[in-house]
Amino acid sequence: MKTLDKPVPPGGTIGIIGGGQLGRMLAQAANALGLQALIYNDQHGAPAFQVTPLQLAAPYDDRATLAGLANVCDVVTFEFENLPADAIAFLAEHVPVRPGPAALATTQDRLTEKSFVAALGLKTAPFFEVSSPEQAHAAFAQLGGEGILKTRRDGYDGKGQVRVISAEDAALGFKALGGKPCILEGFVAFSFEASVVAARGADGSFAAYDPPENVHEHHILRRSTVPGRLTPAQVMEAKAIAKTIADALDYVGVLAVELFVGKDGSLTVNEIAPRVHNTGHWTIEACACSQFENHIRAVVGWPLGSTERHADAVMENVIGEEAHAWESLARSGALHLYGKKDAKPGRKMGHVTRLSPRRSL
Amino acid sequence: MKTLDKPVPPGGTIGIIGGGQLGRMLAQAANALGLQALIYNDQHGAPAFQVTPLQLAAPYDDRATLAGLANVCDVVTFEFENLPADAIAFLAEHVPVRPGPAALATTQDRLTEKSFVAALGLKTAPFFEVSSPEQAHAAFAQLGGEGILKTRRDGYDGKGQVRVISAEDAALGFKALGGKPCILEGFVAFSFEASVVAARGADGSFAAYDPPENVHEHHILRRSTVPGRLTPAQVMEAKAIAKTIADALDYVGVLAVELFVGKDGSLTVNEIAPRVHNTGHWTIEACACSQFENHIRAVVGWPLGSTERHADAVMENVIGEEAHAWESLARSGALHLYGKKDAKPGRKMGHVTRLSPRRSL
Repeated sequence: MKTLDKPVPPGGTIGIIGGGQLGRMLAQAANALGLQALIYNDQHGAPAFQVTPLQLAAPYDDRATLAGLANVCDVVTFEFENLPADAIAFLAEHVPVRPGPAALATTQDRLTEKSFVAALGLKTAPFFEVSSPEQAHAAFAQLGGEGILKTRRDGYDGKGQVRVISAEDAALGFKALGGKPCILEGFVAFSFEASVVAARGADGSFAAYDPPENVHEHHILRRSTVPGRLTPAQVMEAKAIAKTIADALDYVGVLAVELFVGKDGSLTVNEIAPRVHNTGHWTIEACACSQFENHIRAVVGWPLGSTERHADAVMENVIGEEAHAWESLARSGALHLYGKKDAKPGRKMGHVTRLSPRRSL
Repeated sequence: MKTLDKPVPPGGTIGIIGGGQLGRMLAQAANALGLQALIYNDQHGAPAFQVTPLQLAAPYDDRATLAGLANVCDVVTFEFENLPADAIAFLAEHVPVRPGPAALATTQDRLTEKSFVAALGLKTAPFFEVSSPEQAHAAFAQLGGEGILKTRRDGYDGKGQVRVISAEDAALGFKALGGKPCILEGFVAFSFEASVVAARGADGSFAAYDPPENVHEHHILRRSTVPGRLTPAQVMEAKAIAKTIADALDYVGVLAVELFVGKDGSLTVNEIAPRVHNTGHWTIEACACSQFENHIRAVVGWPLGSTERHADAVMENVIGEEAHAWESLARSGALHLYGKKDAKPGRKMGHVTRLSPRRSL
């Protein structure tokens, strides 16, 4: 079993599970620090394979590949949280995995996550376990109004969820979602959405980026704007929430906390993402150390970099066929394209960040 | 013969000749734009090989490899100017090479370069051709004081040059430099050194970064500071000099012009580098579009990105054994390490950029 008593020195190798755009940008951040990135993806042709010669393509539960990964790497991290738990457990027996299996287990199940957040005294939407059609009925009655039924695992960008407006609807929705364990959540009356992206080091050090205001369209992030409409007090509270969660998880790496900003000014925790996050992409241009670099720094045991923001920023996703306008997008700001071939509807093809001089606050 | 009537679209491949840190950072910039980078280096184990799966290792004049490079790539560029001219000419017959062979030919020979700069009406140090010991004698007499004898080709970081204080010295120096064609340059009484890094697009568009003040130690760049001590008028003049040179070369890509800032305030052109430049590394953090990205944008025919600076910056090279202090360097700012294994004396191992809020000027 490898350990991480000391930081991984330059020249060391970080395994990154997942070869999408997040893995790609993590690999680039690792390279900038003189570290090598190995990408492990369950399919060939992954976007991140374009940015490193070190690559493995195999199913995520392939024991031989996992063993090989553990053998080659000094530490392993991931770009997405929906990994088979037993694969992670197997891996963690052979090589340090950061963030650790416990943080993953807490956040990859919506019920566990919400219970964890509520137990920390933080505000969440009302939520109820739904493991059967009967429980769906009962949960709806307890909620007492319309809500949203979500699978406890594997959902992203609005997938695996359905809006329900009656107890019957809830029971039907449960079946429509394949009868998988679900959670029924109430709606939060919010003024706008925000998020906080923060890094926690192996030594417990902590640094949060300024929280952007976020706009979603069709359940997909459209835009992150920083500074948004949060007041200075809300900015401080958002960062404190991220610290509370990161400390409680004994977290190592970057995590994101999605928030609802209520009309009464309160902050409600929507979701925790135990990884770098789409709402933190603006940090590449607007901060000296991006969320990707800070994740790598944390994972290899290096000191965290500055999360100070030296410009105002608006990050917009480039979705589906919007990528065909790459030339005018390139003219409009800092364009990132992820190397994906098919511009399918709803697919994140890239993003553009536009900077402007930093306002005093 | 491939042409570049249209920009290279996302997914296209750029060949980069040279696999050092500049090639490495160029490859990363290409990747960020959704382009693929192929690195061609004359030795195995090049730093840039760590950041792309597309790589060729062969001597730079290997015709079969050059033909293969031309076949695979949409456009070819390079990280250093001292390529065999006939290799470039061969390549340029098969694939667009940017900047073109003419710009290379002008800048890879110190005599041709200085003559070119002087013909544009720009200030240079006094210079004389030295192709024989006799000419060395005569040149020294014409110069009328101490000077520096340099080989016309292949010098960098103070290599291939010798200080001479007499006519005999000049003749001996010529022999010591292997009897290669040389140039004798007079010294310029300068207050400090500066440089201007600028991009010129295929459509003639032009954008210059703010010129940093530079400090060299033992002929190697120690530090670039922006803003430096240049006055607003000198900043404008420096950018105008870069534009005059870029336009005259019908240049496509990023180039750097090293300048002496005289005690009388005048700007003297020291050297032109037809490539991204060490004194432009601070643009990675302090500008929305770095010198590396702008070089790639120009080379593939995309619109140039903004060269606006949104923070003040100090960039320091990490040289030789200084790299062993990577942990404290990582704590001190945005650290870049180049993936080099041996920390030999004088070897550029990485750099650190420290940002601070932008002063009003």
